[in-house]
Amino acid sequence: MLTNRETIRIEWGDCDPAGITYFPRYFEYFDRCTRALFERAGFFKRDMLKKYSIAGIPVVDMKAQFMIPSRYGDDVVVESSVSQWGDSSFVVRHRLMRGDAVAIECFETRVWVAQVGADPLKFEGRSIPREVKEKFGTMEAADPQK
Amino acid sequence: MLTNRETIRIEWGDCDPAGITYFPRYFEYFDRCTRALFERAGFFKRDMLKKYSIAGIPVVDMKAQFMIPSRYGDDVVVESSVSQWGDSSFVVRHRLMRGDAVAIECFETRVWVAQVGADPLKFEGRSIPREVKEKFGTMEAADPQK
Amino acid sequence: MLTNRETIRIEWGDCDPAGITYFPRYFEYFDRCTRALFERAGFFKRDMLKKYSIAGIPVVDMKAQFMIPSRYGDDVVVESSVSQWGDSSFVVRHRLMRGDAVAIECFETRVWVAQVGADPLKFEGRSIPREVKEKFGTMEAADPQK
Amino acid sequence: MLTNRETIRIEWGDCDPAGITYFPRYFEYFDRCTRALFERAGFFKRDMLKKYSIAGIPVVDMKAQFMIPSRYGDDVVVESSVSQWGDSSFVVRHRLMRGDAVAIECFETRVWVAQVGADPLKFEGRSIPREVKEKFGTMEAADPQK
Repeated sequence: MLTNRETIRIEWGDCDPAGITYFPRYFEYFDRCTRALFERAGFFKRDMLKKYSIAGIPVVDMKAQFMIPSRYGDDVVVESSVSQWGDSSFVVRHRLMRGDAVAIECFETRVWVAQVGADPLKFEGRSIPREVKEKFGTMEAADPQK
Repeated sequence: MLTNRETIRIEWGDCDPAGITYFPRYFEYFDRCTRALFERAGFFKRDMLKKYSIAGIPVVDMKAQFMIPSRYGDDVVVESSVSQWGDSSFVVRHRLMRGDAVAIECFETRVWVAQVGADPLKFEGRSIPREVKEKFGTMEAADPQK
Repeated sequence: MLTNRETIRIEWGDCDPAGITYFPRYFEYFDRCTRALFERAGFFKRDMLKKYSIAGIPVVDMKAQFMIPSRYGDDVVVESSVSQWGDSSFVVRHRLMRGDAVAIECFETRVWVAQVGADPLKFEGRSIPREVKEKFGTMEAADPQK
Repeated sequence: MLTNRETIRIEWGDCDPAGITYFPRYFEYFDRCTRALFERAGFFKRDMLKKYSIAGIPVVDMKAQFMIPSRYGDDVVVESSVSQWGDSSFVVRHRLMRGDAVAIECFETRVWVAQVGADPLKFEGRSIPREVKEKFGTMEAADPQK
């Protein structure tokens, strides 16, 4: 299973008056990590949207547990992988690590959607191409490096 | 049960290249709505932190379902209430409405914490004062949702 | 000269570990205030872009002076008006007030642009319609209230 | 003169419905680049604030010119250096490059401040230690720009 590891520096402006990361910023990190996971699988978002005629891969369900806070100046590592594939949806699991400890675990369900008609808010799920799913498959399960 | 209704204008900068609200922005809205709910109960955050010697009410668990997207220029209404009280934690339920439709439902679990010692990342749950809980109205005894 | 006054609550998540507003957030406030100023003049952004076939009114020049900081829980008022009109560009002046004191003064120059051809980054200035400019004119110069 | 080059990926969520970077995000990039410049000079922000008993280095003046837009998926490079030193203030110049073209030029003036007394909004400039300035290389004596 393809896993991406992304190192993220917690910036001053990501933190709140309590000195810890303001929690909505984590979801920006995770969105970046999903983008990076897809790139690692060979899919650059701009090209992917064009090639498969989709409008995006919006999040429809989000579950997150915040166990350990972070503060500015910290470098954390987010491990991301697709934990489940459906026909038109998939689940990305992110684990934000502080050293060896899991600080946050998050499951985001996304849908492979196309825009429908002229209504800018009308999106419809599309079957995710087999060739896309395969790139996230087991062939890189034993990648020790990254 | 005390409920707050907050009207939120979706701003241009909250939306992404697909023309819809970038999902981490919703969590900023919900944080604002929790703040507004507390104010409606009589607790202005700055004073509350000082009075009860707490560092904040950080989110430890988040569950959200995104059913209908929004786009810039939309006015949405978020209905927020405390759906469950624990000793040191509580659950805030937010429902983001587009007209009569529930566009997003979100449950955020927060903890009433104090900082401990000199470590800026060391927080500890504290019992939520009875007088605080009482201001949010009748307690939900048998909440089946969470 | 048409002036818009927008009250803004400084949110917890807008502030940094020093306890004051993280400065890029101010530019989000000002963008909202420009949007609100246009609405006050009768131009709802979504409709305006469509009606005049423009892609937006991007900022090309920004000058800001930060004199007094703000912190979470503060309510500030931003006074916005168009201080100068060019053929395809205009300058919006924002003054963020804390009580009677000017905390921030900002001049943002924006351009009335259309997208050109297929290149998504190719924008070109267009002459701002006379009817648009007129709505910001002197007829409301003596509005003392709002 | 010490210069830092920071490569920044423009993320999906940094872009607006026109498909280009929402301009307040650039100021977040620049704040990160100032942080990175200081680190390159040997000053890790968290330690620096503690060692020199300062509350931060807030921006008091900002000038920026936006010449070429960027869109999601772009990698841009920001070149940052201190272009001028005062007693308690300094100017950081950022140039955001798209290939060989300068897309944005920005001058941010910051102050070396300590908090004064119990008022959380009361900050006062302090003389910047000589040892700090020296780490940024030769001083710019006759900077005509600002």
